[in-house]
Amino acid sequence: MLTEVTLLREAIGSGPGSIGAAVIGTGFIGTVHVQALRRLGINVVGVLGSSLQRGEQAAQALGVSRAYDTLDTLLSDPAVQIVHVTSPNQFHFEQVKQILASDRHVVCEKPLTMTSQESAELVELAAKSNLITAVNYNTRFYPLNQHARQMVTEDELGDIRLISGHYMQDWLLFDTDWNWRLEADKGGPLRAVGDIGTHWIDLTSYITGLKVTSVMAELSTFVKTRQQPVGPVETFSQAGSGETIARKITTDDTALLLLRYENGARGSVVISQVSPGRKNSMQWQIDGSKSGASWDSEIPDHLWIGHRDRANQILQRDAALMNARGAAAAALPGGHVEGFADSFFALFREIYADVSNGKASSHPGYASFADGHYEMLVCDAVLRSAEQGCWVDISPNQR
Amino acid sequence: MLTEVTLLREAIGSGPGSIGAAVIGTGFIGTVHVQALRRLGINVVGVLGSSLQRGEQAAQALGVSRAYDTLDTLLSDPAVQIVHVTSPNQFHFEQVKQILASDRHVVCEKPLTMTSQESAELVELAAKSNLITAVNYNTRFYPLNQHARQMVTEDELGDIRLISGHYMQDWLLFDTDWNWRLEADKGGPLRAVGDIGTHWIDLTSYITGLKVTSVMAELSTFVKTRQQPVGPVETFSQAGSGETIARKITTDDTALLLLRYENGARGSVVISQVSPGRKNSMQWQIDGSKSGASWDSEIPDHLWIGHRDRANQILQRDAALMNARGAAAAALPGGHVEGFADSFFALFREIYADVSNGKASSHPGYASFADGHYEMLVCDAVLRSAEQGCWVDISPNQR
Amino acid sequence: MLTEVTLLREAIGSGPGSIGAAVIGTGFIGTVHVQALRRLGINVVGVLGSSLQRGEQAAQALGVSRAYDTLDTLLSDPAVQIVHVTSPNQFHFEQVKQILASDRHVVCEKPLTMTSQESAELVELAAKSNLITAVNYNTRFYPLNQHARQMVTEDELGDIRLISGHYMQDWLLFDTDWNWRLEADKGGPLRAVGDIGTHWIDLTSYITGLKVTSVMAELSTFVKTRQQPVGPVETFSQAGSGETIARKITTDDTALLLLRYENGARGSVVISQVSPGRKNSMQWQIDGSKSGASWDSEIPDHLWIGHRDRANQILQRDAALMNARGAAAAALPGGHVEGFADSFFALFREIYADVSNGKASSHPGYASFADGHYEMLVCDAVLRSAEQGCWVDISPNQR
Amino acid sequence: MLTEVTLLREAIGSGPGSIGAAVIGTGFIGTVHVQALRRLGINVVGVLGSSLQRGEQAAQALGVSRAYDTLDTLLSDPAVQIVHVTSPNQFHFEQVKQILASDRHVVCEKPLTMTSQESAELVELAAKSNLITAVNYNTRFYPLNQHARQMVTEDELGDIRLISGHYMQDWLLFDTDWNWRLEADKGGPLRAVGDIGTHWIDLTSYITGLKVTSVMAELSTFVKTRQQPVGPVETFSQAGSGETIARKITTDDTALLLLRYENGARGSVVISQVSPGRKNSMQWQIDGSKSGASWDSEIPDHLWIGHRDRANQILQRDAALMNARGAAAAALPGGHVEGFADSFFALFREIYADVSNGKASSHPGYASFADGHYEMLVCDAVLRSAEQGCWVDISPNQR
Repeated sequence: MLTEVTLLREAIGSGPGSIGAAVIGTGFIGTVHVQALRRLGINVVGVLGSSLQRGEQAAQALGVSRAYDTLDTLLSDPAVQIVHVTSPNQFHFEQVKQILASDRHVVCEKPLTMTSQESAELVELAAKSNLITAVNYNTRFYPLNQHARQMVTEDELGDIRLISGHYMQDWLLFDTDWNWRLEADKGGPLRAVGDIGTHWIDLTSYITGLKVTSVMAELSTFVKTRQQPVGPVETFSQAGSGETIARKITTDDTALLLLRYENGARGSVVISQVSPGRKNSMQWQIDGSKSGASWDSEIPDHLWIGHRDRANQILQRDAALMNARGAAAAALPGGHVEGFADSFFALFREIYADVSNGKASSHPGYASFADGHYEMLVCDAVLRSAEQGCWVDISPNQR
Repeated sequence: MLTEVTLLREAIGSGPGSIGAAVIGTGFIGTVHVQALRRLGINVVGVLGSSLQRGEQAAQALGVSRAYDTLDTLLSDPAVQIVHVTSPNQFHFEQVKQILASDRHVVCEKPLTMTSQESAELVELAAKSNLITAVNYNTRFYPLNQHARQMVTEDELGDIRLISGHYMQDWLLFDTDWNWRLEADKGGPLRAVGDIGTHWIDLTSYITGLKVTSVMAELSTFVKTRQQPVGPVETFSQAGSGETIARKITTDDTALLLLRYENGARGSVVISQVSPGRKNSMQWQIDGSKSGASWDSEIPDHLWIGHRDRANQILQRDAALMNARGAAAAALPGGHVEGFADSFFALFREIYADVSNGKASSHPGYASFADGHYEMLVCDAVLRSAEQGCWVDISPNQR
Repeated sequence: MLTEVTLLREAIGSGPGSIGAAVIGTGFIGTVHVQALRRLGINVVGVLGSSLQRGEQAAQALGVSRAYDTLDTLLSDPAVQIVHVTSPNQFHFEQVKQILASDRHVVCEKPLTMTSQESAELVELAAKSNLITAVNYNTRFYPLNQHARQMVTEDELGDIRLISGHYMQDWLLFDTDWNWRLEADKGGPLRAVGDIGTHWIDLTSYITGLKVTSVMAELSTFVKTRQQPVGPVETFSQAGSGETIARKITTDDTALLLLRYENGARGSVVISQVSPGRKNSMQWQIDGSKSGASWDSEIPDHLWIGHRDRANQILQRDAALMNARGAAAAALPGGHVEGFADSFFALFREIYADVSNGKASSHPGYASFADGHYEMLVCDAVLRSAEQGCWVDISPNQR
Repeated sequence: MLTEVTLLREAIGSGPGSIGAAVIGTGFIGTVHVQALRRLGINVVGVLGSSLQRGEQAAQALGVSRAYDTLDTLLSDPAVQIVHVTSPNQFHFEQVKQILASDRHVVCEKPLTMTSQESAELVELAAKSNLITAVNYNTRFYPLNQHARQMVTEDELGDIRLISGHYMQDWLLFDTDWNWRLEADKGGPLRAVGDIGTHWIDLTSYITGLKVTSVMAELSTFVKTRQQPVGPVETFSQAGSGETIARKITTDDTALLLLRYENGARGSVVISQVSPGRKNSMQWQIDGSKSGASWDSEIPDHLWIGHRDRANQILQRDAALMNARGAAAAALPGGHVEGFADSFFALFREIYADVSNGKASSHPGYASFADGHYEMLVCDAVLRSAEQGCWVDISPNQR
């Protein structure tokens, strides 16, 4: 008979408060990290902002006692045992390398790096260390996604045949929308794919246990010129009325991918940051030879399960009704909706249990650096396929 | 102030009962044709079954006074002014040719023919006649699809950028499921694409007013061997317990298509007849530079309209709230749900108004033979693309 | 192995076309009757309008060959074997009496009469005849409501405890909305209750097999003065711009009912014709000791089935998945949505099978005159309860 | 241009970490309090469990440094400035009195007390103090409920006429389900009403700004005997297999309420803890003379807005689209779902801003002790109405 408090007790063990964490990045997602760590009882000892001033503002707002001036200073703080990297993508590689070199655990936001060469190097470095290393693909930790993972391993869906869905947003719809992710040199040459598409690929690969072997990609930049404001802009914030500069955009507003999987399954995903009215809509459907399942990130506490020969089902997130993986990721009773922030809570709970145990569990549910590297290889193939207009393999020696 | 009776009066004019129709095919869809015609007040003078016996059984069950033994007999009946063709696909071409030659109007189920050579010939024959010729793409006539068409022409969505969705069924999930459509020589080399995929392409092309110029296709046959029962099987019926023969299947269970449109828009559609729990789920989403819209055939009286800068909308089918096209296709007050059968009623209402007027209106909402031929050209390109693994143009001289 | 055509054949038997029907009333709902009869293959021999002119207009528009000038003339037509009564409520009693006296079967729109004295008399007259007599509570014949009925009889829900829901519309929201139903002398002293509330009570009583024994009612007239247009107004049509007269309104815009059932179950229903955005939303939820179920008339092809100890279910209307009652009422394959008009088709199919057989089946699914009388008794109790502000029994000698 | 970090900064001001909080109660809801406080950066200095042992277990699991043995000890801790009371209902009154007497701010779970005499006394004590005193009606702080509140004050709905909905759960469906709330002496004579019904009444009163003046109630206990396990049971946990004792139950499984509001509006709510499949489903619909709105706690990021004369709307929780109140309660960008735990975060953010400022704001959004007392008066009237079977006023001198 599981109870909520019991779940928490088992997940963390004694003394989460004794683990000291620092967070790089103080934007929207950095704040989510800090709050989830706090909720978990982790001691957030300090933050590192894009400037000392911004770090200090954030530290004060969040009630964090310390803002570091540099990563060196952060890493010289003996209270810090683990570092969360939520800086712009272009900084991930160097920062993670430095963190690993200083023998700290690391949780890095996706994408892990800007190139697959970099991610390959980090995989090697991580393998040589005894550190916990994770990439922050949080959507795996919506409890019903964990449940779906176990449905597949227990053969409830049968052979997986078709994986389809979308990841759609609208925050970059207008040419007045601006963010550093639009610039290839800061966010990488793939934008919609790198920013949200890899979430979808990681999640569906995780649930099905299947890797993509070939990809066919069609990339489009519909808004070819955008108005860049003078001054900084927060992610997901709206356009102001200040001065702007016209900027050519080369990164993808939309990406249409077809996928071939190692077992013969096929996939299709539509990725878009210019779909009006879709705020942050990630949907997947997985069709097997027995049954199917479907999930929507904007109604995350409901899992649709499709059947040919009996009524379809709607499973609500409820520890009493889910399988063991699903129940382990849940924190609240059924009907008391868990959302985006709760997925970080569940993810960090598993990561910090490993930190607390001093080593990674044999099959961690969270994404490893190898998983993060795999997403970089998929991105490479996406770019090549879009250029060539044909299927491109993710060659075995790369995977 | 529109009222329902007024709508009917305007649509039909005087004397629909004076038009005599005959229906070829007495299966599920033939029955839907007969009933929609009856509801409209059309005189269904006779049916032609796959055998005289089956035709007579159907005539008795449906209360139709006459079953013809052959198409010749049917066409020698002076009471017949228009013929509906709902026979298996392989017979469409010859039957339609014969009907046109006897100077009768014709409504042909999709696909128009088995090959684009045949459909090209029918387009020519139709052009030379003064007859009403239509292909039965009924989904255009769900009133909210008509409304969506006018939204596009009135620029409510802005420039069309992304067209995505699916058409999924599950009635061919198991290897014990059987239907003549599985056999390439009876249904054509493309099955899921031909049977349901062309519905999606026709509908979204109609709404957006955009033609596909290139296609990238991935076809899969997951159930490579099926058990064919001995004896006839109705479409959408379930497997019995009788004797079966193992048969190799080459037609597509699923098809993943990427699409390029003439204006630079991009599209993606997932077509499947093996998606557990999806009974007949056709969904489209059209994203423009201003707003987006989305529709689901299993909840056809609701249209989702997406906005970036204000609340999204759910427009219910309601003549008082829809634009002129939407209102014209509606028969019942808002909240009194219209479904599949009602879409035939609305479609036939428009076709028979033209029949009654003796000539096609300048921009008919129903699909012409040219539209049916275009779908055949798309199918040709889908086959070639799937073989070649790359984008294939629908060459201008073909379109 | 049921097929659609088989269903039709079994339901009607041979020769539906030989039954002649006439329809009184040519408004929205009269048109629905005519079309459903036509679809069924019934011979609609004539209509009777509120005036000969309106009748002739409707006959022409609908392609009906004859418009009668009076009910006498109608009943002197030997081709008429059954009459559908869709005139305003105030005329039902006298018309039905006259129809029964002329030995014709009758299908009467709800409410059966204006008073329970009248309905009691009609019950007696019907009992003395050998005629098929039905009240047109069509919502019973949405196939999933038939399915729900059988779920209850097969104890899938356990003991019925709680019956709740609403019936909400918005077509009388504004003081410029007008219809004869607003006037107590034409529609009866209860408007929202009589017009839509009795649909809900009839449906839930039918599904559960339980009668209401006591009622607690709260009636409100929020729009106390309305603008009556000069000239006729169609039901569900919208206000025009013509001349109007201010009229005091005494009938109920909303009614809140609490219900006690014979087995100890309890009920609550909200009835409203002034709920903005609810076009024609009828919802019920039935909670039993084992499981629950819920249905929404605006998404009628989906039935929610609630469970405590396993995932909830969404059953789509699909003859292959429903029980025998559900399957018998279905006409189209799963996923091909059936709507409001289809419920009339299914209802009339059952009524006309009885007409064809010459006698009512032992437990007809359609509402009898006794059922219609029972609704009048409930209405009586609602009026008394609202006046007294306390629970009122439906006394046994009345039921 | 609002950003998330800005929202946080403004809400808290400097130094939330300097406020020390203690939490009484370590069950499901106590854990939610602790985590929300942590996320906000509040220093949770200790917990008080039902026994020292349980308190110490919880403290260790949650990473809280201290478990108190008694409330006296807790209140002697100078680090504690505010106390959250989440103990069983029967202890609220004495504990809150003691906390106020020791000059600490207090956040008390609902219901505030067991009787209205007690709650009246607490209102007086709170008024005499300069302390922040709040009752934990957290559902007000789902951002879309805050948005709805402002919609009403800005007359977007017009005159409020009809308030309807339900609060349904299924965790007490079976006779093997047990919890202290079932016992009248521990939870109070009203169970479903007190536990969840008052949430609904508080929320709809808050949104509409309207008080209930009279109530008509029907209470039912369907499960008259339950099996009480030997040993403690957590709320929302499921039955085990241990030894049990049969216990008579007198508290309400379901309650049906009709409501009259001060402005003439009417209300109806169905409250049930035995509705199979409804895990924690709170729904309200508010119909005005202009527009209507509806919300569902199990899909809390979507607000339905109903219109008569234009398309209905679905407003997603999105600070860029909501009004000022809605935006102020939001923490995450649109589409990144907020759930149950987030509502506590938003509620506590407002309470602690007042704590930080040293006084309550002029119109706090959170429920005051007066609001909590009002709910007790409603409960009194519910009990009397259910006994008498008629409407009962909430007399002005009591309100």
